Amino acid sequence: MLNTCHTLEKQGFKVTYLNVNRQGFIDPEELRKSIKNDTILITIMFANNEIGTIQPIEMISKIAKMYNIIFHTDSVQACGNVPIDVQKMGIDSLSLSGHKLYAPKGIGALYVKNGIHFEKFMDGGHQERDKRAGTENVAGIVGLGKACEIATNNLKWHMSHLKELRDYYIEKIKEKIPDAILNGGMENRLPGNSNFSFPSVDGEELLFLLDAKGICASAGSACTSGSSKPSHVLSSIGLSDELASKALRVTFGEDNTKEDVDYLVDSICEIIERSKK
Amino acid sequence: MLNTCHTLEKQGFKVTYLNVNRQGFIDPEELRKSIKNDTILITIMFANNEIGTIQPIEMISKIAKMYNIIFHTDSVQACGNVPIDVQKMGIDSLSLSGHKLYAPKGIGALYVKNGIHFEKFMDGGHQERDKRAGTENVAGIVGLGKACEIATNNLKWHMSHLKELRDYYIEKIKEKIPDAILNGGMENRLPGNSNFSFPSVDGEELLFLLDAKGICASAGSACTSGSSKPSHVLSSIGLSDELASKALRVTFGEDNTKEDVDYLVDSICEIIERSKK
Repeated sequence: MLNTCHTLEKQGFKVTYLNVNRQGFIDPEELRKSIKNDTILITIMFANNEIGTIQPIEMISKIAKMYNIIFHTDSVQACGNVPIDVQKMGIDSLSLSGHKLYAPKGIGALYVKNGIHFEKFMDGGHQERDKRAGTENVAGIVGLGKACEIATNNLKWHMSHLKELRDYYIEKIKEKIPDAILNGGMENRLPGNSNFSFPSVDGEELLFLLDAKGICASAGSACTSGSSKPSHVLSSIGLSDELASKALRVTFGEDNTKEDVDYLVDSICEIIERSKK
Repeated sequence: MLNTCHTLEKQGFKVTYLNVNRQGFIDPEELRKSIKNDTILITIMFANNEIGTIQPIEMISKIAKMYNIIFHTDSVQACGNVPIDVQKMGIDSLSLSGHKLYAPKGIGALYVKNGIHFEKFMDGGHQERDKRAGTENVAGIVGLGKACEIATNNLKWHMSHLKELRDYYIEKIKEKIPDAILNGGMENRLPGNSNFSFPSVDGEELLFLLDAKGICASAGSACTSGSSKPSHVLSSIGLSDELASKALRVTFGEDNTKEDVDYLVDSICEIIERSKK
């Protein structure tokens, strides 16, 4: 999203970036005050990939309606993890990605409300009623459709299962590693998302040693893996570069169990213990 | 390709379009004369999708080298149908599409010679060493790799099998429907491609009735299906709108047999006979 905004700026558009508070929430009042006469688009992530913050989407869409501005939301992290109803929520446009909801990798969807004109993002053929050029990834599209169907049917169980694992994990970490700092809040957080900074261990070392134990986690987002810059998300919520570099993002999935969480917590504790020696 | 050039023009680049002769070949001498001091790119289709014309790629690449200009070729139709060696042929950049060589739909590849800088075509994540943003279509990529391997191993048989079917079809059509006009030449033509204009039958009617007989063919390219404009390819080789609208593009595949061709020819003859009544 941030990169897309940079692209808009390169094309000559003016972009206003909103601040977020310590938990990563935008302030709807700041949004309202930022609107100018020539504002044509409000685009705000539905939920954050690194710290799981779910934005007040309905309040945002109400402000957009009030000023007659198109509202787009990147729901890549939210879709399949929380209920979404574009009509009820007043969302004009929404993007989602298949692999976040157990569809194949490399397929996504863009929802655009009837009546909103948009330019296609690449030239070529006139497929999909001239909305997107290129021969379609048919298998991926079918897979995404099926995955959406399954996700919708499973949503209630999915949410409570992931939330249970996440809360169990957060509780155990707080109990066993008292200096760990939870990034993001506990309210309006994606059910499967956790993000702790562990001041007493090097972030890269922690990731590396967890990987050796068969645990996949990340420091920031996969899109920037390999980068040594501190996460712009963690900087935005006020973390020092030091603490941002010591963040561990763990997200839980449908196949995870409480035993997995126990193994994860034990592994983190063991690594931190050893690094103190 | 044509659309991509229009995009470049929208961005302020000047594009020179070359003429083609009656068989669809460019004139290398015209290419050479079109080069200006500030020409940075020559991009010419390896083989045409509608009439199968295979351009003199090595002559083009020699001219590009001579003037130190990058040479890109769209090999979507050629890849898997004719031998391609980017090093021997002096190709700096080449694009290909999976579904043309029995890989899944929705996957393709761009080859760029080491040392040539290019801007990624969309912003977002920094995947693939920052050359292409977005989570990769892993299954598609694996499928494309395997399809390329199989296509390479099968190429000799593939070419002779398709050429045999095509020549058999062209011969029979010429024999049975003397007023049929072959679009494109017989030399340097894609092995599986045929394109006839049938003056005595309406093009859309022919397609529709063939479809009812279980035969998939097309009037032009799939990218513009549904469009009623005459094919820009057929116009470029000098066909009238009338004859262009009566064109039938038939391409043969590995699973086709001589019996298929017999059924196809019989079907076309029957439709034309009936339309005369």
